[in-house]
Amino acid sequence: MYGDIKLYSGTASPDLTARVANYIGLPVCEQDVICFPNDNLFIKLHSSVRGQDCFIIQTTSPPVHRNLMELLITLQTLRLDSAARVTAVVPYLCYARSDKKDQPRVPITARLVADMIEVAGADRYITLDLHAGQIQGFFSIPGDVLTAFHILVDYLASIQPRMHKPAIVTADLGFAKKARNFAAGLHVPMAFIEKRRVANDSKAQALNLVGDVFERDVIIVDDEVDSGGSITQAVNLVKQYGARDVYVVFVHPMLSLNASERLAALPVREFITTDTIPIPPEKAVHFGNRLRVLSVASLLGEVILRANAGRSVGEMFNE
Amino acid sequence: MYGDIKLYSGTASPDLTARVANYIGLPVCEQDVICFPNDNLFIKLHSSVRGQDCFIIQTTSPPVHRNLMELLITLQTLRLDSAARVTAVVPYLCYARSDKKDQPRVPITARLVADMIEVAGADRYITLDLHAGQIQGFFSIPGDVLTAFHILVDYLASIQPRMHKPAIVTADLGFAKKARNFAAGLHVPMAFIEKRRVANDSKAQALNLVGDVFERDVIIVDDEVDSGGSITQAVNLVKQYGARDVYVVFVHPMLSLNASERLAALPVREFITTDTIPIPPEKAVHFGNRLRVLSVASLLGEVILRANAGRSVGEMFNE
Amino acid sequence: MYGDIKLYSGTASPDLTARVANYIGLPVCEQDVICFPNDNLFIKLHSSVRGQDCFIIQTTSPPVHRNLMELLITLQTLRLDSAARVTAVVPYLCYARSDKKDQPRVPITARLVADMIEVAGADRYITLDLHAGQIQGFFSIPGDVLTAFHILVDYLASIQPRMHKPAIVTADLGFAKKARNFAAGLHVPMAFIEKRRVANDSKAQALNLVGDVFERDVIIVDDEVDSGGSITQAVNLVKQYGARDVYVVFVHPMLSLNASERLAALPVREFITTDTIPIPPEKAVHFGNRLRVLSVASLLGEVILRANAGRSVGEMFNE
Amino acid sequence: MYGDIKLYSGTASPDLTARVANYIGLPVCEQDVICFPNDNLFIKLHSSVRGQDCFIIQTTSPPVHRNLMELLITLQTLRLDSAARVTAVVPYLCYARSDKKDQPRVPITARLVADMIEVAGADRYITLDLHAGQIQGFFSIPGDVLTAFHILVDYLASIQPRMHKPAIVTADLGFAKKARNFAAGLHVPMAFIEKRRVANDSKAQALNLVGDVFERDVIIVDDEVDSGGSITQAVNLVKQYGARDVYVVFVHPMLSLNASERLAALPVREFITTDTIPIPPEKAVHFGNRLRVLSVASLLGEVILRANAGRSVGEMFNE
Amino acid sequence: MYGDIKLYSGTASPDLTARVANYIGLPVCEQDVICFPNDNLFIKLHSSVRGQDCFIIQTTSPPVHRNLMELLITLQTLRLDSAARVTAVVPYLCYARSDKKDQPRVPITARLVADMIEVAGADRYITLDLHAGQIQGFFSIPGDVLTAFHILVDYLASIQPRMHKPAIVTADLGFAKKARNFAAGLHVPMAFIEKRRVANDSKAQALNLVGDVFERDVIIVDDEVDSGGSITQAVNLVKQYGARDVYVVFVHPMLSLNASERLAALPVREFITTDTIPIPPEKAVHFGNRLRVLSVASLLGEVILRANAGRSVGEMFNE
Amino acid sequence: MYGDIKLYSGTASPDLTARVANYIGLPVCEQDVICFPNDNLFIKLHSSVRGQDCFIIQTTSPPVHRNLMELLITLQTLRLDSAARVTAVVPYLCYARSDKKDQPRVPITARLVADMIEVAGADRYITLDLHAGQIQGFFSIPGDVLTAFHILVDYLASIQPRMHKPAIVTADLGFAKKARNFAAGLHVPMAFIEKRRVANDSKAQALNLVGDVFERDVIIVDDEVDSGGSITQAVNLVKQYGARDVYVVFVHPMLSLNASERLAALPVREFITTDTIPIPPEKAVHFGNRLRVLSVASLLGEVILRANAGRSVGEMFNE
Repeated sequence: MYGDIKLYSGTASPDLTARVANYIGLPVCEQDVICFPNDNLFIKLHSSVRGQDCFIIQTTSPPVHRNLMELLITLQTLRLDSAARVTAVVPYLCYARSDKKDQPRVPITARLVADMIEVAGADRYITLDLHAGQIQGFFSIPGDVLTAFHILVDYLASIQPRMHKPAIVTADLGFAKKARNFAAGLHVPMAFIEKRRVANDSKAQALNLVGDVFERDVIIVDDEVDSGGSITQAVNLVKQYGARDVYVVFVHPMLSLNASERLAALPVREFITTDTIPIPPEKAVHFGNRLRVLSVASLLGEVILRANAGRSVGEMFNE
Repeated sequence: MYGDIKLYSGTASPDLTARVANYIGLPVCEQDVICFPNDNLFIKLHSSVRGQDCFIIQTTSPPVHRNLMELLITLQTLRLDSAARVTAVVPYLCYARSDKKDQPRVPITARLVADMIEVAGADRYITLDLHAGQIQGFFSIPGDVLTAFHILVDYLASIQPRMHKPAIVTADLGFAKKARNFAAGLHVPMAFIEKRRVANDSKAQALNLVGDVFERDVIIVDDEVDSGGSITQAVNLVKQYGARDVYVVFVHPMLSLNASERLAALPVREFITTDTIPIPPEKAVHFGNRLRVLSVASLLGEVILRANAGRSVGEMFNE
Repeated sequence: MYGDIKLYSGTASPDLTARVANYIGLPVCEQDVICFPNDNLFIKLHSSVRGQDCFIIQTTSPPVHRNLMELLITLQTLRLDSAARVTAVVPYLCYARSDKKDQPRVPITARLVADMIEVAGADRYITLDLHAGQIQGFFSIPGDVLTAFHILVDYLASIQPRMHKPAIVTADLGFAKKARNFAAGLHVPMAFIEKRRVANDSKAQALNLVGDVFERDVIIVDDEVDSGGSITQAVNLVKQYGARDVYVVFVHPMLSLNASERLAALPVREFITTDTIPIPPEKAVHFGNRLRVLSVASLLGEVILRANAGRSVGEMFNE
Repeated sequence: MYGDIKLYSGTASPDLTARVANYIGLPVCEQDVICFPNDNLFIKLHSSVRGQDCFIIQTTSPPVHRNLMELLITLQTLRLDSAARVTAVVPYLCYARSDKKDQPRVPITARLVADMIEVAGADRYITLDLHAGQIQGFFSIPGDVLTAFHILVDYLASIQPRMHKPAIVTADLGFAKKARNFAAGLHVPMAFIEKRRVANDSKAQALNLVGDVFERDVIIVDDEVDSGGSITQAVNLVKQYGARDVYVVFVHPMLSLNASERLAALPVREFITTDTIPIPPEKAVHFGNRLRVLSVASLLGEVILRANAGRSVGEMFNE
Repeated sequence: MYGDIKLYSGTASPDLTARVANYIGLPVCEQDVICFPNDNLFIKLHSSVRGQDCFIIQTTSPPVHRNLMELLITLQTLRLDSAARVTAVVPYLCYARSDKKDQPRVPITARLVADMIEVAGADRYITLDLHAGQIQGFFSIPGDVLTAFHILVDYLASIQPRMHKPAIVTADLGFAKKARNFAAGLHVPMAFIEKRRVANDSKAQALNLVGDVFERDVIIVDDEVDSGGSITQAVNLVKQYGARDVYVVFVHPMLSLNASERLAALPVREFITTDTIPIPPEKAVHFGNRLRVLSVASLLGEVILRANAGRSVGEMFNE
Repeated sequence: MYGDIKLYSGTASPDLTARVANYIGLPVCEQDVICFPNDNLFIKLHSSVRGQDCFIIQTTSPPVHRNLMELLITLQTLRLDSAARVTAVVPYLCYARSDKKDQPRVPITARLVADMIEVAGADRYITLDLHAGQIQGFFSIPGDVLTAFHILVDYLASIQPRMHKPAIVTADLGFAKKARNFAAGLHVPMAFIEKRRVANDSKAQALNLVGDVFERDVIIVDDEVDSGGSITQAVNLVKQYGARDVYVVFVHPMLSLNASERLAALPVREFITTDTIPIPPEKAVHFGNRLRVLSVASLLGEVILRANAGRSVGEMFNE
């Protein structure tokens, strides 16, 4: 009832789109994406989408604003070409950490991004592991907010036999509830790292480990790794508290600046992440074979198929 | 520039409104609120609000839907009477816990409530301690999301000298970050209670205390106390782990069902809360002198004055 | 083109929904409707409605605000679950009498209710016998505003042979035009009851009967009977003017407070109404066999079938 | 707080605007209104309205669509010129009789007109005696829906001493409630004219007079007189039932086609109306001195002054 | 997926609609369009459009405002009757020349018209040769903005063999780019007429011909011919500069006032235009056989077929 | 009535903002603009703007998307901090050339940008010399679209005495009308450059000069100079046709890639432009003293003052 699936790929995550297309069994539709000398983007679809069910897959990793604008222009182009339905598929949604005013006179940029996606013409959106689940409520349009949790936990369970008394640790108290889900999924205990500003020094932080990691293998979990600072602190802290092997698990491999080098230098046995953001070879190389990238392509592909056919997505997870 | 302040009181929290009016130094404006035999509400303002800066203070405690509807009808009435500006002042915002789809096929009712407040005609809103700060992003209109944190921490600091090695404990991992702020504000350590479902039994829960409370006075913090189940579990658990005196601190005293009796029966030295929801005498009586209700009236009053005058609210908190 | 029919039942009118489902030949879809101790409602659909044509049947009789909110939450839940189309079926729409500002500083709550239904996510609505037909114009979305007129007139025509020189009487001048339709449908004359406030006494009313009922059977018609006050006055007045048998006909049996006892005590031969609002047995019992409830279930069922199939509703009435 | 009053006059009712301006004590602002050969209108304001409180007075009598469009273009022009507030003052609002779908497949044009006024940029509206009060609910913006009732009743009261046992009669059952207000205001009885289609003939009507006019002076009341057909029927009917002098009272003197001649030929002692629609001399002449036009200019002028100053309009009527 | 095509005809261009219907092979749907004595229009569709794909063809030539309003009312009627999709087909869109504020305090009426079409309920629009292509951006809804360019150029190419050294001339610098397309399409040179106001006289204009027309056949091109003033100037000027035969080509034959007589009197060999606006016989007669009206009916018909079927419109033009 | 002026500067055009602030006589307000390692921007205002009249000046030159997003985030921040009014001041508006669909399946990005500015929270906008005046109609909010025309023409008039028989030439037919205004302002003739694609080669262009430049000084005018290709062609062409001195005038000095070198190498006597886009010293140096940058700061400053005070902007230009 929504027409045929037409899959478009933004320029930020073509490999993931190719994997999704492969799962679905359809080619990626062609379009020109031109950047004029004055830095303005221009898009031209190669064929009509009139009455079709269009999906544009574009992650919003750096260059964030260019990638976001490309997404928005494509949404508008699809809408103005009279697509029957337009879905924004954004594996990693930028600005998700700017999700509330926790001090005066600051923005809630995640709401702005949601508004922009809607005003550009998306009828629906699909994304993964939002920094805060509440961001769903920033959209007026319906969406599928998926999670790589099952993919990550299944993998961890598969290597759990080789771990020694593993424990889940989170370095972000805002992630405590999701960390608990990992702990529950693997039937292991958990601990927390609590950060606190020192006196009046705005930069210095005191770190406390609440809970027990002594002589345990530790799995540090987070949603996004950016410059790697938090993870570095966390690894050092659990080591200092007597942890054995350390595993680092996160959904979105932002890996800004020199994060790859920095992380690769840590005493970590394995880094486990996904392909919501592409990791370029020059970054991946630092990790050697300690980097495990699990693909979300089948997940996205299956959800796109079900969205088009009007079948339940929840039942993929027995919900 | 917004006209004179006109303060209206919903029927759910007249005492709080009276305290706010007293702070501001203005009378509460009069209106009829009639409930017809068919359960429909009717409102008539006693005088014109044309070109005035109107504030309607209405908390949304039970009967939630009647109170919410009264708020909405008042907002519409003020707008249709050509008020210059209409502000919804909702000390306790209902449905704040329905703030995301954490399972398929459920609502995000907090977004619906935000939409209803906007469509009824509010230009701005003022509320306190939302369950999740992200709910600010559910509104398109600007608002002041205040916190009783400073009021509560100041009080705790004032009684801290009589405590023995106090520690902050939270029973809700989603409240972990705010609990940390209490711990940092009082310069004390913190611990967490982690709940986990037992096997396939949907009701049974295992509770773990992560962190240390042995021979410590414990301050259990939360945003809202409803039927008191979580708090009861938490008090029992910290006692079991060797805690000395226990204090229970929360912003919104919902106290549903027989929560007052239940809580009053616990080995808790003091219950500290606010007047965002009125506690009727028949509930308060169970606590004897162990209940401390700190008023948010000056906070609300000052913010209303500043909103009307176009002066900074942030600077009230040196921000 | 709108997917399959999915019929949901609010908790306010399950019997009517069951009758509608029976007409359509489909089961009512299952969902959990939970009321938490803090009076907040929670809804969870048992199966996906992705791409389906959903109808939620919920009347908005007392408790009005709880029932209205349940309707709104269900609408949002269906929309967020990516239903293809969502229709609010509201047999009796609350607040329909608050449809204009006939004095300053009052609300137009019926517009607010329409706005709320739209903002919650209804694509269409179906309702019966609005207090004022103009309320259709309060909605931006299209709807089917049905009438039980044909059902009631057909029944009256069937018992007309046993009446003696019947006349139609209305007690509400705002209902005069619709009363005329009854009179025209039965080819009988009509009379009016005119109420007028007495002097400066805000409560006392003078009643005039304009027209002739002497030695006639009288059929008093109205859209909604609430506390029964108007009907009681009307019956007494027509009796006083020499009426013989009296019949009372109305669409929406609100029957607030002790209306059932009050009405049952009147010298009325038969009360004729519909099931847009359920009449609980403890109310129905007062009327003995003098109460005739005609069901609107087939009407609603047929309209739902036609709405789904894209067939004319008007031609059901040869229009 | 809304800037200075700037009064603009549409071309449909310049005399009324001049009277309003005179009441207010301000000149009418100048603008060009040009009709190009291709029938497109063009407007240019002679001076800036930046930050001013603008009122455009334009009635929507025939040519209805040209006058309506002129109103809308002026609203947009004022908004785009950055007026602080724009109010549409529409003494007679066209299409008010198309206010509901009382048969399938017809429009609700009054809602469309309200939407058009809003989308053009009106912040508020002022109008008089809407055909149905519910049309207020078609607007999202606030407005002042005034009535000439007091002006008309005061005049009738002033001539009541010369009447003989007067009675109010209405020819439109939809006007029954307002007719009752006239009857109550003058403390006189009322009667109704009931029209009914005859058999299968779509044109033929049977008229019944319900109530008593024998040897009474009769005041026929209505909101709008269009081609005069209803009034002609009514006058003849009351005469046939034995009425003495007949007075005809109505707010909006549409007087289409040859209504003036037709009405002037009736045995009516006085026609009483207002200047919401201008009556051109060539129409007025037929009535000789039997036409009494009461001006609504002071009413509009006073409301504009109060709207600008933020003072109550309701208190003009002791409400 | 959009239901069956239902084609409605406004009263402004019934012949064109008939030709479109003929191309599509469907009858025009029936409706009543009534103009009441008070100049208000009323529409009633003869059959239901529930779930159908509706197209209303209505050009907006004079009487512009009546025709525009008829279009809007029809759009609303179709929407309220629950059409699956409603498309406004407006061969000539009025007010397209009021497309920007090129002086202060004037409207952008084309944007207002776009807003009105949207608020009335159009899901899409189809139009031809907008005065400025940017007007597409005034709509939020998608549309097909077609052009008669190919039809006109093809015709010109067919008669080019009989021309002598033809050149394209435009009298409106704002049409320069489109004129270039004609020149390029026919592989001929072009020239421009530049108008300039003389000194302080607001009416007097000096005309310059920039480029060469000496001993050439000249094709003057424009989008719309209104009162014919510009064309008259242009023909005289090119003749004065030594042009041989003159052809006048334009899309929209507005032909206001006495334009037909005026143009017919010019030394022009052929006038070539389209049927986006009907030319009544009493105007056409002046031109004798020098008027060539090319129909856009097949173009509109084909686009309607493709819009309904969800097939590309662009590929009609090999784009 | 709009509060005090608060002037904010985006990071793209701080020098221009400083000049505007200097004209107005107010300091630029302080804020933090932080770019996180993950390329997300963050903004924090240093002081409250509650109830103030805020202007954010940000041009949208490259990096276009970052600068645009910074503008949008600032707009949202100001709105959420309860500014009384927020005005986006965008000296050069990006994407203005993507203003229509002149081929199928392309975007209208300028409309998207307008929508984004509105959804972010701007109440008004101020910009200069839009590529097409119609872009004003893409905004729903009012704005001041200014022009540097008077500044440029006044300068040209001041140097006209030293020119020999000057003529205006435009290289873009879409700019023909504005070029005519320059010609009229200086009382000189004009000529056009017409480009046409050669045969089937998509890149090759044939250039024609329509009009006369022989032995004349030529002033080439355009709105924006990007990579300089068009200007280079134009200069060479007029030289080839016998022009004497050549002047190049344009509003927006985009000067992408190596445009500065390229232009500086041309036989042009003077390049005249404005500071709507900053020209970095490393670009400016190529021009030596042949580059004249006229500032729009006083123009912007004066408009901001008048917008705040509610005074006419049009009268600055005697309009």
